[in-house]
Amino acid sequence: MDRTQEWNELAAQLGVDSIRCSTAAGSGHPTSSLSAAHLAAVLFSDHLRFDVEDPANLGNDRFVLSKGHASPLFFSVLKAIGAIDDDQLLTFRKFGSPIQGHPAPAPGMPWVDVATGSLGQGLPIGLGMALAMGLDDLPGRVWVLMGDSEVAEGSVWEAMENASFHGARNLIAILDMNRLGQRGPTMLEWEGDRYAARAEAFGWRALRVDGHDVAGIDQAYREAEDGDGPTLIVARTEKGHGVSFLANKEGWHGKALSPDEAEKAIAELGGVRDIAITPQKPDVRVDREPLGARADTPIDLPAYEEAQATRKAFGEALAALAARPDVVALDGEVANSTHTEDFQKVAPERFFEMYIAEQAMLGAAVGFQAVGKNPFAATFGAFLTRAYDFVRMAAVSRANLRLCGSHAGISIGEDGPSQMALEDLAMMRAVHGSTVLYPADANATAELTKAMADLPGIVYLRTTREKTGKLYDAGEAFPVGGSKTLRSGGDDRVTLVSAGVTLYESLAAADALAAEGIACRVIDVYSIKPIDGATLRKAMADTGLIVTVEDHLLEGGIGDAVLSALAEDPLQGRVVSIGVTEMPGSGSPEELRDWAGLSAAKIADRVRAALSP
Amino acid sequence: MDRTQEWNELAAQLGVDSIRCSTAAGSGHPTSSLSAAHLAAVLFSDHLRFDVEDPANLGNDRFVLSKGHASPLFFSVLKAIGAIDDDQLLTFRKFGSPIQGHPAPAPGMPWVDVATGSLGQGLPIGLGMALAMGLDDLPGRVWVLMGDSEVAEGSVWEAMENASFHGARNLIAILDMNRLGQRGPTMLEWEGDRYAARAEAFGWRALRVDGHDVAGIDQAYREAEDGDGPTLIVARTEKGHGVSFLANKEGWHGKALSPDEAEKAIAELGGVRDIAITPQKPDVRVDREPLGARADTPIDLPAYEEAQATRKAFGEALAALAARPDVVALDGEVANSTHTEDFQKVAPERFFEMYIAEQAMLGAAVGFQAVGKNPFAATFGAFLTRAYDFVRMAAVSRANLRLCGSHAGISIGEDGPSQMALEDLAMMRAVHGSTVLYPADANATAELTKAMADLPGIVYLRTTREKTGKLYDAGEAFPVGGSKTLRSGGDDRVTLVSAGVTLYESLAAADALAAEGIACRVIDVYSIKPIDGATLRKAMADTGLIVTVEDHLLEGGIGDAVLSALAEDPLQGRVVSIGVTEMPGSGSPEELRDWAGLSAAKIADRVRAALSP
Repeated sequence: MDRTQEWNELAAQLGVDSIRCSTAAGSGHPTSSLSAAHLAAVLFSDHLRFDVEDPANLGNDRFVLSKGHASPLFFSVLKAIGAIDDDQLLTFRKFGSPIQGHPAPAPGMPWVDVATGSLGQGLPIGLGMALAMGLDDLPGRVWVLMGDSEVAEGSVWEAMENASFHGARNLIAILDMNRLGQRGPTMLEWEGDRYAARAEAFGWRALRVDGHDVAGIDQAYREAEDGDGPTLIVARTEKGHGVSFLANKEGWHGKALSPDEAEKAIAELGGVRDIAITPQKPDVRVDREPLGARADTPIDLPAYEEAQATRKAFGEALAALAARPDVVALDGEVANSTHTEDFQKVAPERFFEMYIAEQAMLGAAVGFQAVGKNPFAATFGAFLTRAYDFVRMAAVSRANLRLCGSHAGISIGEDGPSQMALEDLAMMRAVHGSTVLYPADANATAELTKAMADLPGIVYLRTTREKTGKLYDAGEAFPVGGSKTLRSGGDDRVTLVSAGVTLYESLAAADALAAEGIACRVIDVYSIKPIDGATLRKAMADTGLIVTVEDHLLEGGIGDAVLSALAEDPLQGRVVSIGVTEMPGSGSPEELRDWAGLSAAKIADRVRAALSP
Repeated sequence: MDRTQEWNELAAQLGVDSIRCSTAAGSGHPTSSLSAAHLAAVLFSDHLRFDVEDPANLGNDRFVLSKGHASPLFFSVLKAIGAIDDDQLLTFRKFGSPIQGHPAPAPGMPWVDVATGSLGQGLPIGLGMALAMGLDDLPGRVWVLMGDSEVAEGSVWEAMENASFHGARNLIAILDMNRLGQRGPTMLEWEGDRYAARAEAFGWRALRVDGHDVAGIDQAYREAEDGDGPTLIVARTEKGHGVSFLANKEGWHGKALSPDEAEKAIAELGGVRDIAITPQKPDVRVDREPLGARADTPIDLPAYEEAQATRKAFGEALAALAARPDVVALDGEVANSTHTEDFQKVAPERFFEMYIAEQAMLGAAVGFQAVGKNPFAATFGAFLTRAYDFVRMAAVSRANLRLCGSHAGISIGEDGPSQMALEDLAMMRAVHGSTVLYPADANATAELTKAMADLPGIVYLRTTREKTGKLYDAGEAFPVGGSKTLRSGGDDRVTLVSAGVTLYESLAAADALAAEGIACRVIDVYSIKPIDGATLRKAMADTGLIVTVEDHLLEGGIGDAVLSALAEDPLQGRVVSIGVTEMPGSGSPEELRDWAGLSAAKIADRVRAALSP
């Protein structure tokens, strides 16, 4: 059997197995798998350099199934390369199986680096992988298989532009142009020249191929491998290829075949096969470091005696963290605002300017961490909303990501509401396994920035535009899940709970109230998730009244986090939540805080009102 | 003075006034304004058809300042056309002034249709405006002024593709290619041919012009006006043009000039002028209907006697709402999943398939409502995270938007976590002025879908993939802010609070517990924001234990909303929150609910445990 026949046989097996597993599951996307079967067969047989026994080897090529719904194809490939067996394949979509509806890293699934299934994310992620490999001069390539419907997502074009700008030579995207989306024809159908023209206009090389001609595919892959820039292979394919009643037919998206239909389709494809292939192993073996492996690296954190903005402290602490070679930083063209520019100054080769393309920035960060880097990504907190789907999916990817959102709250002042992060705490709390940090002063920020580097999952740090005064000495410990009680006494009648910039207003309010004989406890909940529930519950038991103060909308932020922590015990006392309740405009930070009820004077008024009979 | 001189004089005035107002404010973006002064001068003098006295006239052309940071330019234009006076201009960025840091609709600012300042949003919004005008055969054009940094945002390319696909002939985008972003050169700097090639590859006509040559600009605008498809005008400009120490200089982004610098710059620009212009009025006058004007339209809502999926009821109710000519629907290529296809069937001309481009979909929806339409936009709830920045900014725009997120929660089953909305309630609650609805059965969904059409602000409806049983009769009222108490008695020992699919599990748990002698109250909080606090507080007073049950992460959803409502009175009793706490995989809805503790059996276990001594 010649090579062409072998590839075609393997492709037929992948198609048959895609049908078998999705029919066994009763759901799934067999037709989206059939369109890419030849593309996958040639790739895994002869191009992808990948050690099946050692998927964590950083010397491997990477494969990202951006069209995650073609999971039957991917898992059929895993069977063909011996990663899973046929019994496992047939657990597709079953409860408890790592062979999920869309690929996701999970226990028992080390061959999946990142979760896909939200379309348009594979290319940004692949870009990050490619850039990470470039940093270490690894010879690997990143292969991203995309669907044609998903290139309507702007994130694809953010990645296209950044990939060519950054010269990601080892990035190869394959476009499975099968013409049909979920509901019918795509906007461009089979106009491959137009996809190619777009890619070329974005600085990529574009190749065109018949996606069911294995020799042509092999040739295109060779050309792509020889390139010195990112390459898009536009492959004209048929959805449901190889099966008469599926091929290029509408109405079959995301539908498993009935057992009868499956039998017919499998017969048309030549029946069940049991071909095993072994991808070529890479020449290089590079260990992946476990989380925390660099935690003992001595870091010369900045120390502050004077007022400083927490965003500046973040930047300087991040620059200190550059002593760890695993740390990389990405920014959305605001590095002189977030202060990641301080990192860039000391480690320019590990700083990635992603321009105003927050989705590409977050996707790339997920890619970086998937191949062993420790990415910090920063922009205005308001603009992280642009990439919330990437944060959500990063959690599904079990990614370790460090995010910083600067310019939080109305306290940015004159720029107005478009630039004010007022929902970021809610957004980041509602991410599975996330950690949410909101330091008030520069020394706390430095400590927490260092701590971020070794925490699992998505870690979010919220910073402030303005300078804030010194509250803590350099070197003071800020354990995640802890808090700081800044005012406390035996006769406290109220507890003010705050973090960040409004903590200062709370302290001033407490001082004013104390002068009137109203003793206040003040707690800095710099760790908002997890929050220090024990301290909060004791404060409620002691004082009977908690007033939460936050430069954030009332929903989902500090107030909600405090109530949730209090609810772990039987409820008692009263909670008053102060936050932003109206749409702000421009103004000075002081004016806006007073307008929102977040000034010391307004906080004190609320406390007096709450305590009056 | 010939026309060219007049335009140049006006441009100089716009530059001078941009400097004056930003210097008076002490912050702002004068150099980003100077680059576009000639473009604006020619546009407002001779091309934009706009009645300054009647900005709400739907017959007007629309202007969207996508590069919202160039607000000094825009407000200087408003002065030149007589919308505001010089004193008002000098309130730029001051507390309480509608002349905000970035343009936003606000009392006193009827000349701004939509908020900008988060980059890359103007073109999607302009697309929606253009499509809306096309629906009514209005002769207006939509002019969108974009910066060059912002075209790195993928949302721009989502809009480019959809605009050409939908044939938005009256959409003209002007690219102020001033070469410099916030931190330094853009990726393409002055490579106008490359921008043009990208636009052409995306199906647009592209023109190139020197952005400081007023005659050339006038000619380009004429060509764009004569076009029969969307046109991009790539204007080569200088940031800070006309001032020797600013022009094409780095380090001046977002910086106001000092009074001394301003004096020098104004002198270089020829001093303060007081030119007044009057844009050409449109030939057409069309009234905008106020919110609720169509509320009395008879709507033949669907009625359900059998189990039905709430997503299907949403689609059928939306189809019934097609009787109102103001209603339009948009979808992200999942209309056969969200069931907006039911609307498409009855009102195909008012259905807009935005393909898998959620940001363009939401931006277009904002544009639709800005010119008098009543847009409903739908996709999987999980994928609304893709457009969270657009939802956030829609609130700043004071937009009335109706959003539906389908396939909520782990109850979608086999597709796995990438498709499961588990943070949508948190995300949507944390939007200023939003309403969040989560009906359990089909009749409730129909009523709430109808109610959505006349609510102010951002309204979110969460729907379920599976069929759910009938709980309510057709025609039953579901007031926003209300709830339904489905089980209640004098000896209730616990209150189960839920909504949507888990309400059924809660009812089954209540029945099982009742059989054991544990009487349970059950409340359907179909209105999650605002939530029915009075009923919840009474339930706590009566039963002393509330158990919240939601197919959502624990943070920011029903549990938090209930606690927040309880906190309006002194706290008492206990709250147990049941939600998703681990990363789900695939499985059947039943298996996954049981795994997450959301099955009737597991809910009952939690109640028993909470009640045991």
